[in-house]
Amino acid sequence: MKQLTAGEGMRLISPLPYAVVTCLDPDGRPNAIGVSWLTITSIEPFMFLISIAPQRYSHEGIEKNGEFVINFPSQDQAQSAWICGVTSGRSGDKIQRANLKLIPSLKLRTPCMAEATAVFECKVVNAITTGDHTVFVGEVVAVRGNEHQPSHLYYLPPEELMSCDYQGHVELQLLKD
Amino acid sequence: MKQLTAGEGMRLISPLPYAVVTCLDPDGRPNAIGVSWLTITSIEPFMFLISIAPQRYSHEGIEKNGEFVINFPSQDQAQSAWICGVTSGRSGDKIQRANLKLIPSLKLRTPCMAEATAVFECKVVNAITTGDHTVFVGEVVAVRGNEHQPSHLYYLPPEELMSCDYQGHVELQLLKD
Repeated sequence: MKQLTAGEGMRLISPLPYAVVTCLDPDGRPNAIGVSWLTITSIEPFMFLISIAPQRYSHEGIEKNGEFVINFPSQDQAQSAWICGVTSGRSGDKIQRANLKLIPSLKLRTPCMAEATAVFECKVVNAITTGDHTVFVGEVVAVRGNEHQPSHLYYLPPEELMSCDYQGHVELQLLKD
Repeated sequence: MKQLTAGEGMRLISPLPYAVVTCLDPDGRPNAIGVSWLTITSIEPFMFLISIAPQRYSHEGIEKNGEFVINFPSQDQAQSAWICGVTSGRSGDKIQRANLKLIPSLKLRTPCMAEATAVFECKVVNAITTGDHTVFVGEVVAVRGNEHQPSHLYYLPPEELMSCDYQGHVELQLLKD
């Protein structure tokens, strides 16, 4: 085996599941962020965790409102989902820009994506710092989905984004759009 | 959208990446466990986290030794990888039973899988309880891989394992083998 950089290793284990996390911003307006750093972390109670960088606008919103929804978009929602991943809600209405169709959640104030493959409504029960990210642990309070729409998305970082600071490069891509 | 059970939701978002986590048992012998609840959680420093149930034998070993390796097996290692996921190292040598070929790691005492797609050597820097699991946060101290072998495994839980206690059912499958 050959020694690899972090970025090369990340690329080798891709694609990873890709979800859109919806939340409320600090003013209570819906926002969304693309996340592929997430996992289930408990069965009983049912829990997910997501890993979000503190400089993200969504980080503020999740911290303040204590809730988020993990939406696994279907294939035909790829364009909207991707825009959520590469733009910031700090400088405008990301929901509108991404043409994201939201509907009310069952148990939270945060809305969820309509017609997603599956959505998991989460209340934050813990938050810890892990290096340059924050892990938000969420207890799932409602699960909904569309069984006829099981093809959700996986994220494969482009070759040129293999360096460690690829998140920065993704933001640059946005500027070209 | 339809309301779903936790198990139905989990199935809709599968397959998930599947890795074999190698560790040392409390006596310092190599052990391994199949894990699909894991994610990258920091770029700088580079970190992963894994979610392990406290009753797992590997949990004891990781807790005691403070280190683990996340191995992403290649397609042709599927059989060995699967055996690691459905058997316990408590009652015998799982490495031998799974015919897992291990080689020394670069920075840890825990060995890693030979010929895996990618391996991430991790030192435990934090551990938190999330519901019925423990999240072990690991700082990556070495990354190696085989670029000619990029097809790693994804885990799709069988239909009959859709209920919340599917981990128990997996153990039952073992008894039939």
